[in-house]
Amino acid sequence: MKNITEALMWRYATKKFDTNKKLNDEALNQILEAGRLSPSSFGLQPWKFILVENTELRAKLREAGYDQAQITEASHVLIIASRNDLSEDYVDNYMKSTALAQNVTVDTLSEFKSYLMNTISSKPNAEVIKNWNARQVYISLGIMLETAALLEVDTCPMEGFENAKYDELLGLNELGYSSVVMLTLGYRDESDESLKRAKSRFGTEEIIIRK
Amino acid sequence: MKNITEALMWRYATKKFDTNKKLNDEALNQILEAGRLSPSSFGLQPWKFILVENTELRAKLREAGYDQAQITEASHVLIIASRNDLSEDYVDNYMKSTALAQNVTVDTLSEFKSYLMNTISSKPNAEVIKNWNARQVYISLGIMLETAALLEVDTCPMEGFENAKYDELLGLNELGYSSVVMLTLGYRDESDESLKRAKSRFGTEEIIIRK
Repeated sequence: MKNITEALMWRYATKKFDTNKKLNDEALNQILEAGRLSPSSFGLQPWKFILVENTELRAKLREAGYDQAQITEASHVLIIASRNDLSEDYVDNYMKSTALAQNVTVDTLSEFKSYLMNTISSKPNAEVIKNWNARQVYISLGIMLETAALLEVDTCPMEGFENAKYDELLGLNELGYSSVVMLTLGYRDESDESLKRAKSRFGTEEIIIRK
Repeated sequence: MKNITEALMWRYATKKFDTNKKLNDEALNQILEAGRLSPSSFGLQPWKFILVENTELRAKLREAGYDQAQITEASHVLIIASRNDLSEDYVDNYMKSTALAQNVTVDTLSEFKSYLMNTISSKPNAEVIKNWNARQVYISLGIMLETAALLEVDTCPMEGFENAKYDELLGLNELGYSSVVMLTLGYRDESDESLKRAKSRFGTEEIIIRK
């Protein structure tokens, strides 16, 4: 495994993937597991990870993704979707899952549930909740990007695609989720032009403020 | 360094920090560096990381943070803020920084700049841009959370604080940034009640959809 700083310096938004190299199950599962274990506000995990392996579907995603090559050329394509709402049903399902993990009855979590429902209903409107959920998705994205880099797996995070079309193609509307961001995964083709460009980051003195 | 899955299982939202244990500079700098190297849409890095060491200021942050103990008890407190806009000045500054990193003149990046300015101006309104920037912050949050866990540094990501008050206390309004999320860092107190509760996550079959 690479050192963290090395791994983050090594990673870049891969434009050209080596179409002959596939991720093995071990690496893929480790990245998905990192996504699954990601923290989120109140632990609500308002996300689904859609792994698309069907070739025809990937071709359609590319079409609705401004024809970006990675969508069909990367070893794997993952779309991260976030929940449209935080209904009481959803919270109850989360409470059940938590009770099971902690080996307690759901009743012992009633105070936590009330607190959570109050927090949710204090949000000014449905759009705020939707946005709140979408933000959490980016925590899992960051964690999967770092995990992939540590395993020397290349990635390209992509926001540029027709969200409504993706939701339709992936059947997300019926589930109450919306596509937020896509993560293509695989191995770089060493002829990728992007590889020639040095990483551009603001200096420490520019982005870190000490008070 | 811990194994990735182990580290993510080990981490939890720390409620009670050991007030006698401080992060050393090496660990702190490695976490901040991971934040700095985080990817963001178009590489725009629309964030500032505010590290608060001043004790009085931390007391005020706690006051405006629903009196949550971590804000004064953790070894370190970091607030991540995102830009309110994406002005042409900001993009120009980014182009300068990129040209410097890539050892080219700013002129060679003019096509990239036009593309970027078009993308920004295609956004329906200022609120959408502000939200877009805020989302990027969570990528760096995810990466710092994972980095900390790999280094066996405890953290608690916190969204619950009075944002407007934080912006004022940290002088963010004048900079054109808004506080988004806080990351407290340090070492767990082994008597933390939260430690007794097993991690609650939906199962793989519940959150990963294969197509």
